Amino acid sequence: MNFKNCRSVLVTGASRGLGLQIVESLATGGFSPGKIIATVRNPATAQRLQELAEAHPNIYIITLDVVSQESIDKAAEEVGQLLQEEGLNCLINNAGINVVADFQTVTAEMMVENFRTNSVAPLMITKAFLPLLKHAASRGGAGSAGGMGIHRAAIINITSLLGSVELYWGERANTFKWYPYRTSKSALNMVTRCMAVDLESEGILCMALHPGWVRTDMGGQEAPLSPEESISSILSVMGELTEKDSGSFLHYTGEPLPW
Amino acid sequence: MNFKNCRSVLVTGASRGLGLQIVESLATGGFSPGKIIATVRNPATAQRLQELAEAHPNIYIITLDVVSQESIDKAAEEVGQLLQEEGLNCLINNAGINVVADFQTVTAEMMVENFRTNSVAPLMITKAFLPLLKHAASRGGAGSAGGMGIHRAAIINITSLLGSVELYWGERANTFKWYPYRTSKSALNMVTRCMAVDLESEGILCMALHPGWVRTDMGGQEAPLSPEESISSILSVMGELTEKDSGSFLHYTGEPLPW
Ligand SMILES: NC(=O)c1ccc[n+]([C@@H]2O[C@H](COP(=O)([O-])OP(=O)(O)OC[C@H]3O[C@@H](n4cnc5c(N)ncnc54)[C@H](OP(=O)(O)O)[C@@H]3O)[C@@H](O)[C@H]2O)c1
Ligand SMILES: NC(=O)c1ccc[n+]([C@@H]2O[C@H](COP(=O)([O-])OP(=O)(O)OC[C@H]3O[C@@H](n4cnc5c(N)ncnc54)[C@H](OP(=O)(O)O)[C@@H]3O)[C@@H](O)[C@H]2O)c1
Repeated sequence: MNFKNCRSVLVTGASRGLGLQIVESLATGGFSPGKIIATVRNPATAQRLQELAEAHPNIYIITLDVVSQESIDKAAEEVGQLLQEEGLNCLINNAGINVVADFQTVTAEMMVENFRTNSVAPLMITKAFLPLLKHAASRGGAGSAGGMGIHRAAIINITSLLGSVELYWGERANTFKWYPYRTSKSALNMVTRCMAVDLESEGILCMALHPGWVRTDMGGQEAPLSPEESISSILSVMGELTEKDSGSFLHYTGEPLPW
Repeated sequence: MNFKNCRSVLVTGASRGLGLQIVESLATGGFSPGKIIATVRNPATAQRLQELAEAHPNIYIITLDVVSQESIDKAAEEVGQLLQEEGLNCLINNAGINVVADFQTVTAEMMVENFRTNSVAPLMITKAFLPLLKHAASRGGAGSAGGMGIHRAAIINITSLLGSVELYWGERANTFKWYPYRTSKSALNMVTRCMAVDLESEGILCMALHPGWVRTDMGGQEAPLSPEESISSILSVMGELTEKDSGSFLHYTGEPLPW
């Protein structure tokens, strides 16, 4: 993990699963960022996160319901007061839902619900935190004013391999026939690419990262990876990102995935 | 154009632009399908279509607002009465909108509006017309009981090259910075792939087709192709579709496009 030059990280959906593990792994890792901003929609019920924050004073808990514009704006203001001119180095859009439905059961409202959380929210959050990302990008990273990466300003969208249209064929097409989820992640991949195109000139990196199939509430118990394994791997991928990764779609192992 | 063995075609958004041109080209082409079902959300204002239907008794005008489930169900019932056990050979999901917005101006509601029309509607329409597509698939085509194609049962989703995540990079990334539209077409591409996977075993082909950049209200006057040129080309691509094209994303010239 190479978070040495990353002064601040913000994670959405830090109450449980991968988001919580990101906070824990960052706080207890060798090089912990100066400020770990753990956002959750309901801090009162995020008990494990509260315990972590008591043990690690660089964890800041902020309320953020990713589908509420009011909540996004309020969180951006609070985080702005916390980070000031330092800005935000790394925004991890992790919060997500899986509205399970196949061809028979899917409804328009299920499609829209999953799209709002998984595809639209990362866009609206990035817009709201853009001033802070720009501050960080314009300061450059410690020991390296140029280039791109988490030492400067980066947006990591936690997507899924299930969002790859190309890979959903042949043998891979026998399982996970989830219309709302797959569609939302394909849409998130396009949102990621659009933001990468638009923010590159500001020195802000944007990419999409698949965390692997992981044992969380969403991933289920038959998943091959533990949250620790997934997050240890994706944090090291994040630590190595450079300008060549702008607009990319990477596996948790760091290999590129097809759209 | 090889619509010789296609007995029925349904087109959404047939009031103007490409949808209207599909109806006109089919009705006046060498081999006109037995029944051309032209659906529009507001028949009263679709004057050119009304004129065409007066001249060509195989054009049937049906009311269909693609974002209304009530309207979809009503249209499916009416079309069912018209086609009966013959079923529907070719469903063309053409209706679409472009909610123009860039990174600065995009809102969550704009994203959802474009997604409902361009990505969700083709899915909900396909679900509603599935019994009719199945009838047609189980009858097989005249002179060819097996195989896939418009002689049997096919779903053509009119997508856009702007929905290709892969192609949105480098030189191609200087224009059309439209978040809602691009995202909706990427999402439609995944919906197309999901349906292709699920309907293949029923003998129903599903694919995504880019019509080119065309001079319509949406395409604007600087577009290189006339509606006639685009539709003449895509109708011949449709006529040539076979099982190897199930789940594909094709250019109006017939070449495959990357997701
Ligand atoms: N697990 C896997 O195998 C896997 C594979 C590929 C991709 N992913 C992706 O990885 C990310 C994390 O998944 P996970 O496995 O950790 O899922 P999880 O265990 O179900 O946790 C989901 C997290 O998202 C939060 N969340 C959902 N809606 C929210 C909202 N409106 N506002 C704020 N927070 C919200 C939840 O908060 P609450 O506690 O308040 O509900 C929770 O913290 C997701 O984007 C998922 O799609 C997971
Ligand atoms: N033109 C291009 O260069 C181009 C390029 C790539 C892809 N496409 C795609 O091609 C398709 C047709 O585009 P076009 O150029 O013909 O656009 P257009 O001239 O703007 O016509 C759009 C059509 O969609 C209909 N429509 C929109 N919302 C509807 C709804 N809720 N219910 C029923 N009908 C609805 C419109 O009906 P009303 O008259 O009632 O509004 C109209 O008939 C679209 O999917 C578009 O994305 C076009």
